[in-house]
Amino acid sequence: MATATGDSKRILFRQLFEKESSTYTYLLADLRHPDKPAVLIDPVDRTVERDLTLVKELGLKLIYAMNTHVHADHVTGTGIIKQKVPGAKSLISKASNAKADHFVEHGDKVYFGDLFLEVRATPGHTAGCLTYVTGDGPDQPNPRIAFTGDALLIRGCGRTDFQGGSAEQLYNSVHSQILTLPKDTLLYPAHDYKGFSVTTVGEELLYNPRLTKDMDTFKSIMANLNLAYPKMIDVAVPANMVCGLQDVPKV
Amino acid sequence: MATATGDSKRILFRQLFEKESSTYTYLLADLRHPDKPAVLIDPVDRTVERDLTLVKELGLKLIYAMNTHVHADHVTGTGIIKQKVPGAKSLISKASNAKADHFVEHGDKVYFGDLFLEVRATPGHTAGCLTYVTGDGPDQPNPRIAFTGDALLIRGCGRTDFQGGSAEQLYNSVHSQILTLPKDTLLYPAHDYKGFSVTTVGEELLYNPRLTKDMDTFKSIMANLNLAYPKMIDVAVPANMVCGLQDVPKV
Repeated sequence: MATATGDSKRILFRQLFEKESSTYTYLLADLRHPDKPAVLIDPVDRTVERDLTLVKELGLKLIYAMNTHVHADHVTGTGIIKQKVPGAKSLISKASNAKADHFVEHGDKVYFGDLFLEVRATPGHTAGCLTYVTGDGPDQPNPRIAFTGDALLIRGCGRTDFQGGSAEQLYNSVHSQILTLPKDTLLYPAHDYKGFSVTTVGEELLYNPRLTKDMDTFKSIMANLNLAYPKMIDVAVPANMVCGLQDVPKV
Repeated sequence: MATATGDSKRILFRQLFEKESSTYTYLLADLRHPDKPAVLIDPVDRTVERDLTLVKELGLKLIYAMNTHVHADHVTGTGIIKQKVPGAKSLISKASNAKADHFVEHGDKVYFGDLFLEVRATPGHTAGCLTYVTGDGPDQPNPRIAFTGDALLIRGCGRTDFQGGSAEQLYNSVHSQILTLPKDTLLYPAHDYKGFSVTTVGEELLYNPRLTKDMDTFKSIMANLNLAYPKMIDVAVPANMVCGLQDVPKV
């Protein structure tokens, strides 16, 4: 239950925060591989410089700039990263219908060195949402680490009222693909608004105020959130459908 | 170099963020001890409810609410915690001259269950600044984890122009007490303003823009920061000298 990478010192793991949109970006790398290959999950356009400086300082080779989904609250950094890091590829779900170099689907594995992320389809916040879970095996991190995007947030979940969202689908996704992982699995979301950094499957099974309810109660909660229209959505979604490229400053 | 607690699943570790003052609070506990005894390092008054809810949900027994120093940028949560958690004691350095239940000095150990924090005096930001370092031993976290307060920040350090601060003292403290730890030691500061969550001794030895300089250059940098007078200092310091008690809402 530690904020930990368990038995192995093989994985480098860094959580990075973008304050304006309360977004978490994650940097992972395989430190035992000679190239130290790395991935960035959910990078934000305005923090790309920070993230790439860190990648460089740590001596990593960034191979993927990947998203859990097409974000509505910030512009992804993947387009800028591709321009600045030769060889780095963008990656997103096929179901997102967004532009990228690589598309993945449920059951695929994304390798960085000898470590990998298992791809799980967790639609409901958007139709193309993925959860990336570190591998299950002796050389993989223990406990496992899941990057849940906006499907499961700490004591919460993403909204389901736009971008092909569906409360019923989200409920099924989280229960079948995330909360079935071992109880000590570390869950890292794409956002947190209260200053939490991590949770576990065990904690959310007990204390998630929405997803511990039955389906009908959950649907009713999600239908009555009365959330404001996201201020960034009309800029962010079109940009993110093409890796944020149209907002890329000329370099 | 992982954001990790190494070989042992014994320690629970949580990093918590207070957005307005960009303060990190840390929750640690010994999960193998039947009581799951826990400590909170640098709690903030306005996030005490969040922190205590988490302590309760995780089934921990909070024994210490401790500070690295008398903060100038936020009011400590220790006074409120003492009111709300029977048995929890406040703890700070003797050199701080602040009020508390327990005072510690360089070389002391703060036990929670069978885990402990080693106390290192790291004055310079304030005269009473401490760094707390997890123990060195087979049952202690590996890599070690140091909570540096405002002595060492990620790619930075605390200011030295008030509260008995001294650039020369800070330089000596960081070099003798923090950067001499093993290179993979995880360093967790009291603040970060750029969204970083952790660094290591190895990284700061290479990339800290201030502390990699010689003493004279460092003193010159610190003398020319031209920082504004901290907006909270006239409220925070007097409050924190008495555990934040005068701001405690009546409960």
